[in-house]
Amino acid sequence: MERPRHQGMAKNTYMRWRLPLVCLLWEVAMIILFGVFVRFGPEADAHWEEEKHEMNLTSDIENDFYFRYPSFQDVHVMIFVGFGFLMTFLKRYGFGAVGFNFLLAAFGIQWALLMQGWFHSFQNGKILIGVENLINADFCVGSVCVAFGAILGKTSPIQLLVMTLFQVTLFAVNEYILLNLLHVKDAGGSMTIHTFGAYFGLTVTRVLYRPNLEQSKDKQGSVYHSDLFAMIGTLYLWMYWPSFNSAISEHGDAQHRAAINTYCSLAACVLTTMAFSSMLQKKGKLDMVHIQNATLAGGVAVGTSAEMMLTPYGSLIVGFICGIVSTVGYVYLTPVLESRLHIQDTCGIHNLHGMPGLIGGIVGAITAAAATEDVYGKEGFIKAFDFTGSYKTRTPSVQGGFQAAGIFVSLLMAFAGGALVGKQEENMER
Amino acid sequence: MERPRHQGMAKNTYMRWRLPLVCLLWEVAMIILFGVFVRFGPEADAHWEEEKHEMNLTSDIENDFYFRYPSFQDVHVMIFVGFGFLMTFLKRYGFGAVGFNFLLAAFGIQWALLMQGWFHSFQNGKILIGVENLINADFCVGSVCVAFGAILGKTSPIQLLVMTLFQVTLFAVNEYILLNLLHVKDAGGSMTIHTFGAYFGLTVTRVLYRPNLEQSKDKQGSVYHSDLFAMIGTLYLWMYWPSFNSAISEHGDAQHRAAINTYCSLAACVLTTMAFSSMLQKKGKLDMVHIQNATLAGGVAVGTSAEMMLTPYGSLIVGFICGIVSTVGYVYLTPVLESRLHIQDTCGIHNLHGMPGLIGGIVGAITAAAATEDVYGKEGFIKAFDFTGSYKTRTPSVQGGFQAAGIFVSLLMAFAGGALVGKQEENMER
Amino acid sequence: MERPRHQGMAKNTYMRWRLPLVCLLWEVAMIILFGVFVRFGPEADAHWEEEKHEMNLTSDIENDFYFRYPSFQDVHVMIFVGFGFLMTFLKRYGFGAVGFNFLLAAFGIQWALLMQGWFHSFQNGKILIGVENLINADFCVGSVCVAFGAILGKTSPIQLLVMTLFQVTLFAVNEYILLNLLHVKDAGGSMTIHTFGAYFGLTVTRVLYRPNLEQSKDKQGSVYHSDLFAMIGTLYLWMYWPSFNSAISEHGDAQHRAAINTYCSLAACVLTTMAFSSMLQKKGKLDMVHIQNATLAGGVAVGTSAEMMLTPYGSLIVGFICGIVSTVGYVYLTPVLESRLHIQDTCGIHNLHGMPGLIGGIVGAITAAAATEDVYGKEGFIKAFDFTGSYKTRTPSVQGGFQAAGIFVSLLMAFAGGALVGKQEENMER
Repeated sequence: MERPRHQGMAKNTYMRWRLPLVCLLWEVAMIILFGVFVRFGPEADAHWEEEKHEMNLTSDIENDFYFRYPSFQDVHVMIFVGFGFLMTFLKRYGFGAVGFNFLLAAFGIQWALLMQGWFHSFQNGKILIGVENLINADFCVGSVCVAFGAILGKTSPIQLLVMTLFQVTLFAVNEYILLNLLHVKDAGGSMTIHTFGAYFGLTVTRVLYRPNLEQSKDKQGSVYHSDLFAMIGTLYLWMYWPSFNSAISEHGDAQHRAAINTYCSLAACVLTTMAFSSMLQKKGKLDMVHIQNATLAGGVAVGTSAEMMLTPYGSLIVGFICGIVSTVGYVYLTPVLESRLHIQDTCGIHNLHGMPGLIGGIVGAITAAAATEDVYGKEGFIKAFDFTGSYKTRTPSVQGGFQAAGIFVSLLMAFAGGALVGKQEENMER
Repeated sequence: MERPRHQGMAKNTYMRWRLPLVCLLWEVAMIILFGVFVRFGPEADAHWEEEKHEMNLTSDIENDFYFRYPSFQDVHVMIFVGFGFLMTFLKRYGFGAVGFNFLLAAFGIQWALLMQGWFHSFQNGKILIGVENLINADFCVGSVCVAFGAILGKTSPIQLLVMTLFQVTLFAVNEYILLNLLHVKDAGGSMTIHTFGAYFGLTVTRVLYRPNLEQSKDKQGSVYHSDLFAMIGTLYLWMYWPSFNSAISEHGDAQHRAAINTYCSLAACVLTTMAFSSMLQKKGKLDMVHIQNATLAGGVAVGTSAEMMLTPYGSLIVGFICGIVSTVGYVYLTPVLESRLHIQDTCGIHNLHGMPGLIGGIVGAITAAAATEDVYGKEGFIKAFDFTGSYKTRTPSVQGGFQAAGIFVSLLMAFAGGALVGKQEENMER
Repeated sequence: MERPRHQGMAKNTYMRWRLPLVCLLWEVAMIILFGVFVRFGPEADAHWEEEKHEMNLTSDIENDFYFRYPSFQDVHVMIFVGFGFLMTFLKRYGFGAVGFNFLLAAFGIQWALLMQGWFHSFQNGKILIGVENLINADFCVGSVCVAFGAILGKTSPIQLLVMTLFQVTLFAVNEYILLNLLHVKDAGGSMTIHTFGAYFGLTVTRVLYRPNLEQSKDKQGSVYHSDLFAMIGTLYLWMYWPSFNSAISEHGDAQHRAAINTYCSLAACVLTTMAFSSMLQKKGKLDMVHIQNATLAGGVAVGTSAEMMLTPYGSLIVGFICGIVSTVGYVYLTPVLESRLHIQDTCGIHNLHGMPGLIGGIVGAITAAAATEDVYGKEGFIKAFDFTGSYKTRTPSVQGGFQAAGIFVSLLMAFAGGALVGKQEENMER
């Protein structure tokens, strides 16, 4: 066998000097923007020693960093190892998947710190960052990794960087609309990360449609060892997803609940994935691609509702359904998307993030609409949905409506943004 | 080379419809049982906001989740990546090992939440779950992963699911007898997880003995890359074992001690494994299989005593001995087990979990029997062995006796349960 | 292709009995020394239950273990998986890299607990160990792993163990001189770990120079799958480096700051590495070796200053520079080092740890010298540099001078120690 390395990187669609120039100039821009705008948040600043004595803080606030940090590291692993290795199942793009994912994520987190910070951590002309910003930046980049799955093997690293630039920006805007204007809950990002990321990527790949792209087994097929590498990605995503969905929830019961719900949903999802994978294959064999991907759909689909009182059996039901939907999608929907709609979805993100993301948004809306003071307790009810200030009078059913609106806004942003970026990328190819 | 993928899954011992039906029906059963019985524990319930104010709780109880969660994630990695990849060293069963381990563990944790919850977290007709239940469910499944190592390559996924169903149930019963009736200490599960899991699996594989199973180098041999994949499993088990042995210990010094003892035992174990592996090989080369497995025996063997005052040098001694016992077992005992006793131990779990588990039980009994108020301090002594309530008058030597009894109960349960399940599996093959 | 396994271990430079004897005797020595000297620290001892009541401790001290433990596990992963797999990129030494790294690290942490404990945790004739000692032992072994990178493929396991014995000892002495005598800050070990480790290893490899060592593509080349294995090492080092640089910092803002600074530096480093890797290659392709190594230089280079008020943009600048320096080093410096200076640097540690370590020391000295009460706050200033006791009157510029002195002491110790150990190793070969 010929040495297959570097193929993912060998594309001659970029000229020798373009990638270096883009990387260097953009990084210089980051330094300047960080220099002007970004400072340590109060709890990471050396002045904290005095401030905390003056403010007479309880140790809880002091400990916030320690309660968030392990989750941050788990999310970090999901973005770089999880998404990176998940995409190695294609034998031709193995190194490209990991390497380009590394590049876009490393750039993306810097840009996300600026964009999200601008909306959420801007004080007195400065963006103040702490561990929560790092988690949110990883989340934001997660949606770019999702979109990357649709266009893997089609684009040059420069095109990826351009996509990252735009997508992170739009992500921050969309997140601001959902969380701040619509006052929607979406701690695990079913809408903001998965729905947005998936339909954004699918729109881009639609615009970049190449009729003669080899979708043959030879190029897109997987080999034995690629499958094991991909399973590393799968398992790290699967194992750490409880951290993902609980990472930015309120301390205490909300975070605890989010972890349990996600754990349950993922466990159920594995069984229905295996069931349908075996059922829909000719010889009853299991398909590696389903096991690598559809087993994760349960985590996507409780992204919005995990921190709510979904209950363990509710989570099992969601995971049960999503394993089926996702596997069926891989078998029947993906080929149709390509042949009829000319959407070449390399990694099948529509099945892993698109549909489960939508389900997650809907489950979140229903769970919110069904919330009662009886189930949450008086204090818990207010805290869970943050019904304070100008939202004091919002009822669960209204909240459910706004949650549903959040799905549509995310979809709209994804289609519009994806079309824009796709056109941009298309122009770059000429 | 022909494409070797899927072989582990290609076994035609199950018909096309059986696996899907079992997966779907069992998952539906889980949903119903969870719906009837399982609810969030108080600290994961939204009512917690009020309760904690009413109860005027100290932040320590509030923080329990945060102190346990990182260990939970480490244990989670050990079960899915650790055990899964450890078994990839056989070139023919690589994907089967990871994939089937994934399936049985995902089902097992759900069933374990019910079974263990029934014994330990049942209140007012409901099983109340929190992060500690998640850790315990992973532990329980760990013993199934151990047993899987003995029968790898011999059984269909359905047989594995059936074994999981029975073994988890028996695990919960055995654990209840040991922890609640005998009042035995076994935080890292030398007896409940490793001894029980290993001898259970060995009994099953004995019943399923197939004289013409190819144990040839060709089928069971390893290849270069398989060895590196297996090392991923080994290293994650090795690195996170301190979390495993300390995950459900009491907060504070007990947990701290358990981590240090395990760390020391594992470090010593590596050196004696390398020594004996090199000594017993013809050309002084190191055998990959020993490095992948015997280096972990030190973690198994301090499972019971790690949270006790074993002391760092005591841990080194235990690790020293276990590296030798385990390596010698691989070289001399495993072939004899097959030729004389017809026990085909695919992964050599008798050397990694069986004998070290027994040693762990014995070391625990001795350490408990040797405990004095002088060594533990007055308060520490009572807390370490929970000599309160009806156990107020138990002396260390009596505790040591009960610890020893725990070993025999675990062995008995393993042999009886294994024979039962083995027969059941045998019937399924017809 | 012939089975390439075991080659890394097949070297016949050691006789059959030497490795077993060294492993066993040294481990026995460890047991005796631990038996005489090592005991649990107060917070891991069962007496703690009483002591904490007597001392009326705040929960902060009680929680110290929980705040350090997740970082400890991250560092543990970096040493065993990170360094181990990073070195698998050479196809001939894949298993040797992981396996020998495992052996030397397992021995090294035991010896480091004794050596570092002797300098830092010695009370009333006993070395009292806790989680901080475990982290420091991992750090110490990290510097041995660095040095191993220079001599990979050249030495037998016994030679590695001998090197570990000496290097750990010298590390502890050097660390004591820097931290206690010079009162230098170096939480992430730019000087103590990376500068010392790199120049130590380079000196050893210089002494062991073998003119006819095949540096040909055949032996040292990498293959596709090796590159993916190496990326596992790279990514775990990259992701967990914020934990590495913050693991032993003061609780609170210092630790928080160290994580943010490291995160920023590493992100910037990825972009400049990609830029220069592409620019310096003939066809604009990216070189895997650069991506695997130079992307990490940013973490090395903020090792000293991460816990200081380096600021996020300062970190970006450091990462920016180090990505360039390290990549250029791989392209132009490594070949010159071999051809002119006869330094065969197998893994290019001079580019990843040597130069970035020096830069880290210099950045630390400048950041310390530039510190003001204005930037740190009155309390924060004293706490950050520990200007208490006999160091009450030390000014930032004096501190900067001592920091600079720390670099030279580390270099001196590395050259002297490396020459000594190299000669020793050379004698062993005869």
